[in-house]
Amino acid sequence: MKIRTAELHRIAMPDPGDASGLAALIDEGALDPATIVAILGKTPGNGLTNDHTREFATRTVASLLAARLGLTEDDVRSRILLLFSGGTEGMLAPHLLVFTRAPAPEGAAPGPALAIGLARSAPLAPAQIGRLAELDAAAAATRAALADAGLDDPRTVAWVQVKCPIPTPGALHGARDLAAASIPGMKHLSRAAAALGVAVALGEVARRAIEDDDAIGAHLERGTRRACVTAAIDSPCVDVMVLGNGAGWAGDQRIGSTVLKDMLDAPAVAALLDRLGLPAAPQLTRDQRDRLVGVILKGDPPSDDRLRGGRHVMLDDSDIGPIRHYRAAMGGMLGALTGDNHVYLSGGAEHQAPPGGAVLALIVRNR
Amino acid sequence: MKIRTAELHRIAMPDPGDASGLAALIDEGALDPATIVAILGKTPGNGLTNDHTREFATRTVASLLAARLGLTEDDVRSRILLLFSGGTEGMLAPHLLVFTRAPAPEGAAPGPALAIGLARSAPLAPAQIGRLAELDAAAAATRAALADAGLDDPRTVAWVQVKCPIPTPGALHGARDLAAASIPGMKHLSRAAAALGVAVALGEVARRAIEDDDAIGAHLERGTRRACVTAAIDSPCVDVMVLGNGAGWAGDQRIGSTVLKDMLDAPAVAALLDRLGLPAAPQLTRDQRDRLVGVILKGDPPSDDRLRGGRHVMLDDSDIGPIRHYRAAMGGMLGALTGDNHVYLSGGAEHQAPPGGAVLALIVRNR
Amino acid sequence: MKIRTAELHRIAMPDPGDASGLAALIDEGALDPATIVAILGKTPGNGLTNDHTREFATRTVASLLAARLGLTEDDVRSRILLLFSGGTEGMLAPHLLVFTRAPAPEGAAPGPALAIGLARSAPLAPAQIGRLAELDAAAAATRAALADAGLDDPRTVAWVQVKCPIPTPGALHGARDLAAASIPGMKHLSRAAAALGVAVALGEVARRAIEDDDAIGAHLERGTRRACVTAAIDSPCVDVMVLGNGAGWAGDQRIGSTVLKDMLDAPAVAALLDRLGLPAAPQLTRDQRDRLVGVILKGDPPSDDRLRGGRHVMLDDSDIGPIRHYRAAMGGMLGALTGDNHVYLSGGAEHQAPPGGAVLALIVRNR
Amino acid sequence: MKIRTAELHRIAMPDPGDASGLAALIDEGALDPATIVAILGKTPGNGLTNDHTREFATRTVASLLAARLGLTEDDVRSRILLLFSGGTEGMLAPHLLVFTRAPAPEGAAPGPALAIGLARSAPLAPAQIGRLAELDAAAAATRAALADAGLDDPRTVAWVQVKCPIPTPGALHGARDLAAASIPGMKHLSRAAAALGVAVALGEVARRAIEDDDAIGAHLERGTRRACVTAAIDSPCVDVMVLGNGAGWAGDQRIGSTVLKDMLDAPAVAALLDRLGLPAAPQLTRDQRDRLVGVILKGDPPSDDRLRGGRHVMLDDSDIGPIRHYRAAMGGMLGALTGDNHVYLSGGAEHQAPPGGAVLALIVRNR
Repeated sequence: MKIRTAELHRIAMPDPGDASGLAALIDEGALDPATIVAILGKTPGNGLTNDHTREFATRTVASLLAARLGLTEDDVRSRILLLFSGGTEGMLAPHLLVFTRAPAPEGAAPGPALAIGLARSAPLAPAQIGRLAELDAAAAATRAALADAGLDDPRTVAWVQVKCPIPTPGALHGARDLAAASIPGMKHLSRAAAALGVAVALGEVARRAIEDDDAIGAHLERGTRRACVTAAIDSPCVDVMVLGNGAGWAGDQRIGSTVLKDMLDAPAVAALLDRLGLPAAPQLTRDQRDRLVGVILKGDPPSDDRLRGGRHVMLDDSDIGPIRHYRAAMGGMLGALTGDNHVYLSGGAEHQAPPGGAVLALIVRNR
Repeated sequence: MKIRTAELHRIAMPDPGDASGLAALIDEGALDPATIVAILGKTPGNGLTNDHTREFATRTVASLLAARLGLTEDDVRSRILLLFSGGTEGMLAPHLLVFTRAPAPEGAAPGPALAIGLARSAPLAPAQIGRLAELDAAAAATRAALADAGLDDPRTVAWVQVKCPIPTPGALHGARDLAAASIPGMKHLSRAAAALGVAVALGEVARRAIEDDDAIGAHLERGTRRACVTAAIDSPCVDVMVLGNGAGWAGDQRIGSTVLKDMLDAPAVAALLDRLGLPAAPQLTRDQRDRLVGVILKGDPPSDDRLRGGRHVMLDDSDIGPIRHYRAAMGGMLGALTGDNHVYLSGGAEHQAPPGGAVLALIVRNR
Repeated sequence: MKIRTAELHRIAMPDPGDASGLAALIDEGALDPATIVAILGKTPGNGLTNDHTREFATRTVASLLAARLGLTEDDVRSRILLLFSGGTEGMLAPHLLVFTRAPAPEGAAPGPALAIGLARSAPLAPAQIGRLAELDAAAAATRAALADAGLDDPRTVAWVQVKCPIPTPGALHGARDLAAASIPGMKHLSRAAAALGVAVALGEVARRAIEDDDAIGAHLERGTRRACVTAAIDSPCVDVMVLGNGAGWAGDQRIGSTVLKDMLDAPAVAALLDRLGLPAAPQLTRDQRDRLVGVILKGDPPSDDRLRGGRHVMLDDSDIGPIRHYRAAMGGMLGALTGDNHVYLSGGAEHQAPPGGAVLALIVRNR
Repeated sequence: MKIRTAELHRIAMPDPGDASGLAALIDEGALDPATIVAILGKTPGNGLTNDHTREFATRTVASLLAARLGLTEDDVRSRILLLFSGGTEGMLAPHLLVFTRAPAPEGAAPGPALAIGLARSAPLAPAQIGRLAELDAAAAATRAALADAGLDDPRTVAWVQVKCPIPTPGALHGARDLAAASIPGMKHLSRAAAALGVAVALGEVARRAIEDDDAIGAHLERGTRRACVTAAIDSPCVDVMVLGNGAGWAGDQRIGSTVLKDMLDAPAVAALLDRLGLPAAPQLTRDQRDRLVGVILKGDPPSDDRLRGGRHVMLDDSDIGPIRHYRAAMGGMLGALTGDNHVYLSGGAEHQAPPGGAVLALIVRNR
């Protein structure tokens, strides 16, 4: 089998209209745009319904890549998984995580090393979103992505990054056959359905245990513990990117993931850093930080107003949404150990993290 | 000299209208209201101009203590330093820090142990606020509080908690002889003046190095590194509470303080925990957490849009003020090490912390 | 039958901790506190879940009246209908509407004049809120209030002001037998149930047309068109104040009400002003404004994102809630005609106003 | 002299990424893109520092026009005055005001009719912004635009729309030679300087009465009463569009403007509508509304916390900025009379409107 290589580049993108960091890397020859398979972006909007920075940044990046690749913007959006998430509250920094994949150079030593598998479902109709149809589409896409990565054993998968669809706001106002009547409601159910699909594909939940549509969004303690699902308006498909450490891959990067049981579970973060060869005591040194390329966290505030017995106000603040409080707090919590403020941190962890907890993936350079 | 004892009680106050936690402690006999000298409270408002939770909580507490002590509310507010700060963003919990002081029991072993000294300046006129007159009043009050605590050597002082005045909004609209024209501006200058006063009293800045009113709020890198100054509307005086570990004090609690050089300076926090006998690896255990009674942090976001090279949006977010982002993030950063979410965390660290950094006090039980 | 007199006093209350305007009126002898039967207050908070200004202002007013009347605060809260609503966005002014009722002076000319009837239901259990039990309790209380006012014909009623209960947040987190799982959800259903109860009592909806609990909050185009229902946490009862122009009442004030079909229905407002003897051309003169004592509006933004064909963003703004946009806009719309900015303007018009429309009551002095 | 024709098209743009309304008008042949000289756009962001919808919408429109005109986006931005303002609070609708200018058709009857004159200053250095250099540049550009429109008598000018520069945020952080140290500060001073320049050009303020840079932003009661100045980051020049009713212009549209003395000055609005042949009684009918093509308002909340004696909270709300409250309220105030919700409504009226008041331009079709 042909050996491949995968790599993650982290690039600052301080403004949604400014892709100069990405352009510079391409112009320097450090990044071949033809090898880009996915870009995760964190933008400085509110991350909620009226956050236009996601689409603005998507267009900025797609426009640049279209020019560099000689494609239309639509082609770029179709060929590369573009997954922008708003909200850089607190100390968090807007940035891009650019994933590339290519044949390994001649004679490259085989892994295990960072492996990437990709797949896309057929388009879903609005009425399929948030329902079993989406769950099954997500499961099938996850299996296809596993195969694409050559990760035969689902247990070796560290992380599944998923983009799931929601209907356009226009379709929502007055719609009757949708799983939910609001954009937040649709996002919730679409993420829940896709996450359960991943859990089925990874063997974490049995498909037969899910009877009907009502299971989606219920019993939130069950699900996958290795996925980050984001709902987006710009595609009707479920897009899946599987990440793991594969034998058929050569390269200098590795990925690991873990589960945080609550917002204060720094010990779980420290244990994962340790396992990846970056022990924090209590914080990574500058050299260690340089080897931490990507940090992806998916989680939510507690579902009640308590954290380890202390009252918090995240759920009851009508001026700042719960997830905005959460992102700011978790950026600080992770930063205490990593010494860094670049986190692709996203809320809406239905069937992905234990309620009130989170899941975390770290991608590191070996040296 | 008569040996005294000082103690800090941390009490949940989830709602500004609910002092039942304080009432319960009094009713159980665990807290003699006659010994209370100061109460710091963290309330769940926005901590900004229109945060009414501070005054609401102040009245709730004052009303309870008035009933228990047989005083008027005004008497309570005059006799006890009540210092409420709004803003429990992210995981932070609204709570009270109740400081008591009393003669030590017969035969109590002398310290060093937690020591408290108190003093109040004469009332300031609106035109004195934010100017040298306030600076000198704060310096004199700090010296008086040191004497009151029997802490003869200023170097032994760990922390100086200060409440400084601002004019009422009514006085601001249209006023001409004030140091600043807005409530945020007045708070800024009043804190700055009081903090420089503390620095003078503690020997951290020479009085003669401060020529005129313009020095207040300029050269923000100089100042004290052991104070937390809060501006409030309900008193025209500068109130000072000095905290240290004094030989003439018996008791089971100790205080320590440190400086954080930026928002990610977890190592400084870890070092202070270590010094106080509570090593975090990476986080305090439950038993250790029970011994951490009080956490007070004063700091501000960076003055530019960078944190260790990563862009942040705290300064440019017109929907959420910088300090709200900051409190949420710092609550997470501290919580990673302490495992707890009770922090009296306040912004506006002019002349108190290095720009972009913070100062931190921890009060712990010895066993 | 003994002739009575009713009067409305409008009093500025710029801060929720400051009842000095009310105190002054009492001290001047212009207002006998023993005659106060209801106080509606508009406070400067966000009017949403974490708006503490409502309870703060309630306590401030109750404390003052307790002192003046020689009662406890609890007695005051039980004897006087205190109905505080948060949110003075845009140009709106925080203020109190103080309703008094007393025997008419000897020889007073009989009306019709402003009439007030009051009634209170038995306490509702949390599980009854938002359900038929609350609807029937509201209907019965409305009938009792009609009788209390001597307004025998429901068609002569101009306005029914209702305070309906919601469970405390503590009861919500984890509760199972409630009609809704969130505070906004409970408020929605409780208002809806109470409004349908008023509609039944006023003959606007037939009781037999309401089959079961599911009718509450459905078919929102039906309901009353003469009520303003506000949900509050501080009482488990449905409190009703009926306002009309009664023959058995003497006095100088009158009330009228109307329906606005959308947010721009200024012609309906102008017609009501005209009917009450205050024609606006286009705006009330200063003399006319002095005769406009009370303005109460209940309404909501459109349920879709259009207003007369123009797109609006009220529903999709995650930084500012829809009702905050609405209050600011409607304050301007009404102010264009009245020339004034005192409106008790409240959202949540389920079964009270036509969807996207509003209901409006004006209380004017005859000369 | 050759007769010209000018026309204003109002086009909905509900989303900053969607210019389909503009595209449709072009595709239908109703709008020749080559005749477009200016586009004012109202976008749904917060209108404050971190409002990315302005630049996003600008790019969306520029990209469409570039494709239609065979130009680069940069060329479009250079040739057409693009002036996007964020903030559609309350009922306001995001929309475009597209101004065209062309030779009049053969035999067109001469006006007076809507006239447009355009001019652009040389680029300003960051240190010139907010200072006399900008004032003089604005005055010269205004005079040039008057000449370009053939409006020889400045008194016949109804409105001057100005786009003035501010430095980029990057230039601000740490800059020393700027007139102000923050983006809001720079916007304030840049608008103030440009507005005074317009006032000089229109003969409303004598140039010799302005001694030095300190006059800019001081004595805010003086200035022009016929301008709307917006600060933007995307050009270092002062761009001016003069609007009036000129004899050398043929067409079906007219413009008028007026001054509102406070937020409730509906009578001034009604008088202007009347003058333009659209009497409101109290509101425009549907037919009349169809003839109201453009509504442009520039104003600010009162500088103290009172409006006609009633307290307002616009200045003291730390959750919602003053101008957001203002826009929502004024949209309602104007809508009461016009029956419509399309207003290009912008705050920051330094030297443009009387403090607490506003200036208003209406462009109407004659039939």
